[in-house]
Amino acid sequence: MMAIWLQNEGLRLRDDLPIPDPLPGEALVRVLRAGICNTDLELTRGYYPFTGVPGHEFVGVVEQGPDELLGERVVGEINVVCGKCVHCRNGRRTHCANRAVLGIVQRDGAFAQYLTLPSANLHVVPAELSTDAATFVEPLAAALQIQEQLSIESHNRVLLVGAGKLGNLIAQTLALTGCDLYVVDRNRAKLELLEDTGIATGAAADMSAGEFDIAVDCTGNAEGFAISRAALRPRGTLVLKSTYVGRLNVDASALVVDEIMLLGSRCGPFGPALHLLSEGRIQVEPLVHAHYGLAEGLAAFHRAQQHGTLKVLLTMESAAW
Amino acid sequence: MMAIWLQNEGLRLRDDLPIPDPLPGEALVRVLRAGICNTDLELTRGYYPFTGVPGHEFVGVVEQGPDELLGERVVGEINVVCGKCVHCRNGRRTHCANRAVLGIVQRDGAFAQYLTLPSANLHVVPAELSTDAATFVEPLAAALQIQEQLSIESHNRVLLVGAGKLGNLIAQTLALTGCDLYVVDRNRAKLELLEDTGIATGAAADMSAGEFDIAVDCTGNAEGFAISRAALRPRGTLVLKSTYVGRLNVDASALVVDEIMLLGSRCGPFGPALHLLSEGRIQVEPLVHAHYGLAEGLAAFHRAQQHGTLKVLLTMESAAW
Repeated sequence: MMAIWLQNEGLRLRDDLPIPDPLPGEALVRVLRAGICNTDLELTRGYYPFTGVPGHEFVGVVEQGPDELLGERVVGEINVVCGKCVHCRNGRRTHCANRAVLGIVQRDGAFAQYLTLPSANLHVVPAELSTDAATFVEPLAAALQIQEQLSIESHNRVLLVGAGKLGNLIAQTLALTGCDLYVVDRNRAKLELLEDTGIATGAAADMSAGEFDIAVDCTGNAEGFAISRAALRPRGTLVLKSTYVGRLNVDASALVVDEIMLLGSRCGPFGPALHLLSEGRIQVEPLVHAHYGLAEGLAAFHRAQQHGTLKVLLTMESAAW
Repeated sequence: MMAIWLQNEGLRLRDDLPIPDPLPGEALVRVLRAGICNTDLELTRGYYPFTGVPGHEFVGVVEQGPDELLGERVVGEINVVCGKCVHCRNGRRTHCANRAVLGIVQRDGAFAQYLTLPSANLHVVPAELSTDAATFVEPLAAALQIQEQLSIESHNRVLLVGAGKLGNLIAQTLALTGCDLYVVDRNRAKLELLEDTGIATGAAADMSAGEFDIAVDCTGNAEGFAISRAALRPRGTLVLKSTYVGRLNVDASALVVDEIMLLGSRCGPFGPALHLLSEGRIQVEPLVHAHYGLAEGLAAFHRAQQHGTLKVLLTMESAAW
């Protein structure tokens, strides 16, 4: 089959890979669509040493698996877990000590014609949800994880720093809480997308310091962290919602004096994400900036890295097979 | 009156200071005893630019003030607040935007024969509690703040890194929750004090990584932070319970991947601290390593900085007046 292959931080297109064989309990999924995420871009910059097929945001059709899934359009949770370790047994399956992660850690991913996943990881996509929109289930679930960890109430003042692919989804999920939300980004076009949905946006320079209850840093860089930190009131919460390039230099004494909480946040629940998308409560179509066939995968990566580009989708239907 | 004076990070003894005049709503307190805390030592190293009388852990007798306090032995909350700002009005009085802090920020402190504080800051010391023991109310309140911020349950595995003056008190308050507590420190003598109260202790090198639900870093240094961080399971909580010397270099991506919570913690509730000490549930006498008269205040600071020294108390009764 055809796939994008990552090795030593370099990408290439291969058409010599075998269709993967599902293990017992796994399904074989023919990939229809896959989204390029910042983590994929980071993998090509050495964030984590991975050799194999990247890609973890996808929609596909089950070709082998349990009867109730055969022929269904599905999305899939990306952590492949053991079910037996202390984390799996204590409700922290996404932190399984023995996990593989689709297209990220020790498991080939979705930038291919086929992938395998445990059937238990798959969720059927409702008929009313388009394949393009359903590729956003995984990042939308990650956005919703913030609310799994933190109760956000309508009286909270919440700052979001970074209105990119994930930031946009987070902004929309935060807005559903009715909180007093403000989103900053250097890119006007990204902010305008959110303003179109009624969300207040602006420039970091125009904000007052120390007034927000919660700040979500979606930038993954030191400047975004600094903006988020300065915006918080004492006893405020700073959510770290992006992997960071390099290490962060933190004034820990100030965290103590102001009794600040920092909270890392990763993968989230697929059920609520599917539900919100199916009900049309999250707008994802404006985030799609381009479609590429799998055979144009390298061009798709190039486009995804351009300044201001939001979601780039790969379509597998047209791939030579 | 006599007092210790801090200016340009240098300490000297003065006997030319006027007895302070209490403002309306304030009481004049004749100091009986005061404890030297790590923050006092940090002030002499330039942690915060303060000119005046340091000292914030004290017991005294009210000489001017409301009738119900006159002649009483008291301890005092150290944050002098406005009562009007957004933090005061929202239950965050220790974070008052206009606060002064006794002996730390813009207010003369307790290493003197007299101090003033708002009467509302004072708490009467029960007769059964010794003056020495009552000087520990302020740091014990700070120790208890962790439990104001975080629910600690008997099934939690909790690591405390650093068994110094504050660490010892934190260990004792954590032990009262019935949690599975383990305390590490490089200093054997400090650990033995805790072992005498039935608390499990050891060396950081002997710990398994990734097994603790909660870690409390009481060291204020990068090594203590690293030990605390490595000990945590995914979704664990790291409490920062000491001001840090310099900035901290943090692997923020790992905080995201492991969904770790960092939580700064400062001043705590005096009522529960007084209650626990009065009931004899916290042992503080073994922490007192030396008494010095106020006139020997500089020698007391010198002693407090020696490796392995726990609490050094200043006694004011004997000061020439």
